[in-house]
Amino acid sequence: MYNYERFESEVRSYCRSFPTVFCKAKDHLLWDIEGKEYIDFFAGAGALNYGHNNSFLKEKLIEYIVGDGITHSLDMATMAKETFLGKFYEVILAPRRMNYKIMFPGPTGTNTVESALKIARKVTGRTSVISFTNAFHGMSLGSLSMTANPGKRRGAGVPLEYCIRMPYDRFLGDSESSLAFMRKFLQDKGSGIDLPAAMILETVQGEGGLNAASFYWLREVEKIGRELGILLIIDDVQAGCGRTGTFFSFEPAGIQPDIICLSKLISGYGLPMSLTLIKPEYDIWSPGEHNGTFRGNNAAFVTAAAALTYWEDRTFQEQIQQKAERVHRKLTQMIADYPELRGEVRGRGLMQGIACGVDGLAENICKSAFRRGVILETSGPRDEVVKLLPPLTITEEVLDQGLQVLEESIQECLNNELHVA
Amino acid sequence: MYNYERFESEVRSYCRSFPTVFCKAKDHLLWDIEGKEYIDFFAGAGALNYGHNNSFLKEKLIEYIVGDGITHSLDMATMAKETFLGKFYEVILAPRRMNYKIMFPGPTGTNTVESALKIARKVTGRTSVISFTNAFHGMSLGSLSMTANPGKRRGAGVPLEYCIRMPYDRFLGDSESSLAFMRKFLQDKGSGIDLPAAMILETVQGEGGLNAASFYWLREVEKIGRELGILLIIDDVQAGCGRTGTFFSFEPAGIQPDIICLSKLISGYGLPMSLTLIKPEYDIWSPGEHNGTFRGNNAAFVTAAAALTYWEDRTFQEQIQQKAERVHRKLTQMIADYPELRGEVRGRGLMQGIACGVDGLAENICKSAFRRGVILETSGPRDEVVKLLPPLTITEEVLDQGLQVLEESIQECLNNELHVA
Amino acid sequence: MYNYERFESEVRSYCRSFPTVFCKAKDHLLWDIEGKEYIDFFAGAGALNYGHNNSFLKEKLIEYIVGDGITHSLDMATMAKETFLGKFYEVILAPRRMNYKIMFPGPTGTNTVESALKIARKVTGRTSVISFTNAFHGMSLGSLSMTANPGKRRGAGVPLEYCIRMPYDRFLGDSESSLAFMRKFLQDKGSGIDLPAAMILETVQGEGGLNAASFYWLREVEKIGRELGILLIIDDVQAGCGRTGTFFSFEPAGIQPDIICLSKLISGYGLPMSLTLIKPEYDIWSPGEHNGTFRGNNAAFVTAAAALTYWEDRTFQEQIQQKAERVHRKLTQMIADYPELRGEVRGRGLMQGIACGVDGLAENICKSAFRRGVILETSGPRDEVVKLLPPLTITEEVLDQGLQVLEESIQECLNNELHVA
Amino acid sequence: MYNYERFESEVRSYCRSFPTVFCKAKDHLLWDIEGKEYIDFFAGAGALNYGHNNSFLKEKLIEYIVGDGITHSLDMATMAKETFLGKFYEVILAPRRMNYKIMFPGPTGTNTVESALKIARKVTGRTSVISFTNAFHGMSLGSLSMTANPGKRRGAGVPLEYCIRMPYDRFLGDSESSLAFMRKFLQDKGSGIDLPAAMILETVQGEGGLNAASFYWLREVEKIGRELGILLIIDDVQAGCGRTGTFFSFEPAGIQPDIICLSKLISGYGLPMSLTLIKPEYDIWSPGEHNGTFRGNNAAFVTAAAALTYWEDRTFQEQIQQKAERVHRKLTQMIADYPELRGEVRGRGLMQGIACGVDGLAENICKSAFRRGVILETSGPRDEVVKLLPPLTITEEVLDQGLQVLEESIQECLNNELHVA
Repeated sequence: MYNYERFESEVRSYCRSFPTVFCKAKDHLLWDIEGKEYIDFFAGAGALNYGHNNSFLKEKLIEYIVGDGITHSLDMATMAKETFLGKFYEVILAPRRMNYKIMFPGPTGTNTVESALKIARKVTGRTSVISFTNAFHGMSLGSLSMTANPGKRRGAGVPLEYCIRMPYDRFLGDSESSLAFMRKFLQDKGSGIDLPAAMILETVQGEGGLNAASFYWLREVEKIGRELGILLIIDDVQAGCGRTGTFFSFEPAGIQPDIICLSKLISGYGLPMSLTLIKPEYDIWSPGEHNGTFRGNNAAFVTAAAALTYWEDRTFQEQIQQKAERVHRKLTQMIADYPELRGEVRGRGLMQGIACGVDGLAENICKSAFRRGVILETSGPRDEVVKLLPPLTITEEVLDQGLQVLEESIQECLNNELHVA
Repeated sequence: MYNYERFESEVRSYCRSFPTVFCKAKDHLLWDIEGKEYIDFFAGAGALNYGHNNSFLKEKLIEYIVGDGITHSLDMATMAKETFLGKFYEVILAPRRMNYKIMFPGPTGTNTVESALKIARKVTGRTSVISFTNAFHGMSLGSLSMTANPGKRRGAGVPLEYCIRMPYDRFLGDSESSLAFMRKFLQDKGSGIDLPAAMILETVQGEGGLNAASFYWLREVEKIGRELGILLIIDDVQAGCGRTGTFFSFEPAGIQPDIICLSKLISGYGLPMSLTLIKPEYDIWSPGEHNGTFRGNNAAFVTAAAALTYWEDRTFQEQIQQKAERVHRKLTQMIADYPELRGEVRGRGLMQGIACGVDGLAENICKSAFRRGVILETSGPRDEVVKLLPPLTITEEVLDQGLQVLEESIQECLNNELHVA
Repeated sequence: MYNYERFESEVRSYCRSFPTVFCKAKDHLLWDIEGKEYIDFFAGAGALNYGHNNSFLKEKLIEYIVGDGITHSLDMATMAKETFLGKFYEVILAPRRMNYKIMFPGPTGTNTVESALKIARKVTGRTSVISFTNAFHGMSLGSLSMTANPGKRRGAGVPLEYCIRMPYDRFLGDSESSLAFMRKFLQDKGSGIDLPAAMILETVQGEGGLNAASFYWLREVEKIGRELGILLIIDDVQAGCGRTGTFFSFEPAGIQPDIICLSKLISGYGLPMSLTLIKPEYDIWSPGEHNGTFRGNNAAFVTAAAALTYWEDRTFQEQIQQKAERVHRKLTQMIADYPELRGEVRGRGLMQGIACGVDGLAENICKSAFRRGVILETSGPRDEVVKLLPPLTITEEVLDQGLQVLEESIQECLNNELHVA
Repeated sequence: MYNYERFESEVRSYCRSFPTVFCKAKDHLLWDIEGKEYIDFFAGAGALNYGHNNSFLKEKLIEYIVGDGITHSLDMATMAKETFLGKFYEVILAPRRMNYKIMFPGPTGTNTVESALKIARKVTGRTSVISFTNAFHGMSLGSLSMTANPGKRRGAGVPLEYCIRMPYDRFLGDSESSLAFMRKFLQDKGSGIDLPAAMILETVQGEGGLNAASFYWLREVEKIGRELGILLIIDDVQAGCGRTGTFFSFEPAGIQPDIICLSKLISGYGLPMSLTLIKPEYDIWSPGEHNGTFRGNNAAFVTAAAALTYWEDRTFQEQIQQKAERVHRKLTQMIADYPELRGEVRGRGLMQGIACGVDGLAENICKSAFRRGVILETSGPRDEVVKLLPPLTITEEVLDQGLQVLEESIQECLNNELHVA
């Protein structure tokens, strides 16, 4: 019996889906203690965009540790932070003509979301925030109020308030229904909806089932907010940092959020780190009004700064997009070849998947893939989506191998279904 | 102009108290980019109990990184976690006959507090939780409701509810007033206080002004909770992991919390990590009911496991206690020698300080110490306490040096006060 | 200067719209202290369905007072209550095969709504309640959370929570959009809407602009609730007791609410009284769990019992319906004759009006009517509806007179508009 | 079987304590349908200060009804209101040099409390309100948050928030402990208590067990509020209008509340009516920001104005005080004569009673008194207080008779107790 089975809380979950003990990893590969090799189409729930233990980042990290660079600094100034800030400005913000102040709100996704909600409420003096159907924004009380998943919400043990729930793009069928609904509810004085401080949204809903908002919808949502003085918060924790093919997931939509939440992928190496980007006019925090012990995780600053090197020319971005098209073609072909899946391709960039119209099927496909050496998780309110989150740096060959295993897993499951029926 | 001044949000704070850029650190020393050396009596707000870049831990960490150990794993099982769990059981839990399930709730203090509040509410089916005057439990919405600091609370932008505020030990003068008050309010049917799910407390209030609860008070509080079915949560984020001289701060009081929150110091190296310990009968989570991307920060597991080596015999613990007495003697002498301080020694273990009876004095003392090369921060509701948090591994020589600088800083400030008056 | 101008709070409102002092009233007529006579198309916001000082009820009331009947009894048993309960059962409940327990929750509309919300939450163990756009349910904190009007809501001074806002019939255009929206949000596990305890609604929204729900929509809403275990509360405070042509406003829709709120019109004489009707299986109150000093207003029980006499045969009901059709014909003609109104006929029964498409016009029409001796108020989120609430007992002659004055007022206002333009 | 047993909701309560059907009442007497006569020491929970169907008020009431005076007027101006306002100013406010605007917030106690909370929050822009242990302020959600009784609170079905609970005078033993506690919690920046909008309190807690605050405590509480900008709301719903010997219960303490809540007794005849008195500088309502159908119960205005006649000279007030002393002497003697009661005299004015130190005894005494023809209720968190609320106009003879019956009931119960033991 493993220690995790003896000592770890019942809350543990991924170790139930992937019942083995992993010991080593490199790029897109993982090995368990029995020496079995796995292709990683999960990438730490998307946190490992440059693969496991990326050699370039690793070199910088070891150099820093060996040299006794500052490891932990709260929000004192350090060289590692200076370097990261300068490079983030130069490589990311300046070329995109984006003017934002950078906040280190604590090292996790829920920390950045909590800080975004606070500053939006402070700026507007209002309490409610719009969040959308199938949203996932985190597990601490403020973020959890915005999260839609009923099981996660029940975990709160208290009513989750101050959230106005709106229909995400296509939740009501098409984009227009959602927009018409929002406009009507926010503009009609009799709607009973109090004017909110902000709206928070993911451009692609990672946990909510790989729903990708159309660029049109994003622009219209931004416009509604502008007209009414509602701040726009983009939670780019899962979809940002290149996952969809551009550094920020919203770039191709041409919108300009007031506040941006980044985490998961920003350190590049899987080290805890997050950022909140705030338009300068809204950066009205008092010093220390939000804080946290681990907002100065310097090892992460080092890998994060190094990782930005990937973004210095457009090649990296173009390669992601080529791989994304490859995935899209393959998935589209699969749902055509296996109509029994009643499948639908979802998502965009290297954040795509297949929504299965048959109950329990997605879960079985992932189990089968795991046995065959590919790590894949489900998402969506009924775990109905097989979700592909390979490292952005994966080679086309391994990408194809993994997709091949996915297809075999689909075949196996459909045969079993047939057999059962 | 530094990048942090140009690009970082106005929320930054410690870089205002310590206006320089740090670049290197070892054990109890820090260096800035101008080569100035500092003795660290702050230790990352107590997160660096074994000093900066502790050689023993560093070796293990580099070895792990070089060997391509898993860096980031969500809550999948890994060898690093297996090792940590086994060692934590063997070195910490078993010898103390403590029976707890271990939860990885995300890597920060506020994550463990949020998870503790959730499970206490789930277990009892009640919503309110008792928190105490001058408490600090974190900055996400659930933890912030429990935190007492008014500036931090105002940052929420929404009413902070579901908290019953009770007087901490000696807040009303002596221990008995606080206990009598609690008993009366919780037992009298007409008090208007709804029965709470839990009470959460720090045995020494780090941010709240180094108030150390008496062991008597802790035992009586535990007893009140037991009688009424209120769970006891000890937030040992700042005071745990040896800071007060024993691994858990509450050991000498002889109490048995239902839930224990650990963070800050648990990784030993300043890497983000936290644990929630839960009595097995209360570990009724559904799988995944609380989660978070960075709950599997394996680099931290490696240093955390290595750090437990310090706790394998009693020498380490005894040395902390000797240093603590040294600090206590010296501080006691200072308040006697400088009655103009109107000083009071606060805290216990290597978490002590001087509460100054003169407005603004503590802040000036810390500024003076910084100029003289010692890093010290204030705490307390009016920043009235000079707080000493040296690494537990500091040598007696350097401890004395730092205390000497503190005394000089006090002298300088008192002279200035005199001059002004 | 009148006393009300010197001494009464700034919160006063109707005395601003109707700036005179009234001193006498009979049936559908009012007189002010200067002897001017007014036709009452307002009827105490619909509370005076049998007219002012109805002779039959008045006789019973005086007889009771003269005979020293109990005036005030909290919820002790009295003969007046016995008589009322028996007659309500016999005349109202039994013939309609309705099986409900009768609760006296305090004498006002907001008291019955508060009690309905409480019992629905107790029965289901859930906190949220669905309320609809443009809803008005009262002004105490529980009811106000359900009310949609932004000005009233702002008055709360605290966030108004535990309410899920849904689109009323035709708020989104047609009935189907509203129903589709509700079904989707309540049934889709990813919608982020927690399962509510109940839904509360008015079949005709009196304050919200005379929006009358279609019977189809009411039946579908009931069906959605039944499927999901959500209780149905009909707030019949303004539309009940005959106002729409049947005793309960929902009778023609054929639905069976779980809880019914009655007030305003139930005493028949304008005396404060209200009832909460509860299906027996949900009457799980503990004794005294909800109470209130004035739940035993016996003078009101006496007039309420007497008023039920009107409902002993079907003539009264038929007469209301004939008058309602008369009003409908006349209003329909007016909007045809005066297209500049951009008018729409709203409501049903003796609760109809004209929604004007021109800003401020409805208010001016009511002002003009007041000068001409007809009392009329506006409703709707922009005060855009001229609302007719004549006593149910009004004669056809006086009804026609009032409608004639309304037409003249419209003509005057349209001429003025023309003149201004 | 009576109708109330067949048809009335399980929530009914007083009809369980007094299991008969009442049919007639005059002054301090009640009769049931079997002709049995009762002395009323309950007076409609204190709502009938001038006795049942007081002849002088009755005459005015009948005259008004017969003359077709306006019965129901929302907040339109009427002669009845004009008369009441003028007389209330002349007889009550002007002689006491009290400058307040008068608000009609709806006819019940909970309406006035809800309006007081709203305006205090609007004036200060803060959300929390201090309420005290054993407080009773009403049953709608805003008032219920302030109420202490656990059974009533549980009825809400939602968490009751925005209330800071403080110890009432002597709840912690003496006056000073309560005051010291309040000062410490409100002034210490680390207390974790957010600055409240207001404090609301009863000078004598009617439902909470007849706890009478000392005048010293009241003055100190007022002072604390003044220093910190916290508004003082006196809920004089049960203790006001002469019940304690002066028109306002707080007059002898010499305090000047910012807001005063009156109801129950203000109409004098048991008709639903309430007032909120607001200092002019705080009367910043928008028109209609709080409203309610029955805020214009003109029949109640008529009796309320007539009842003020009692207050035109000081005789009435002096007589109440004499009767109060009579009650006090008699109760004091009883607890001396019957030490087995372990009794304590509580309350002041004609709002006194005996707190019994034996579980269940108070309830048995009231039951015995009822059988003997005296109506008496219990109060307090454990129903441990026998509460005397005779009409203020009761004659000394009948007062003595009732007290005599009380003594006999005590004897009977003590004998039974003895017998049981």
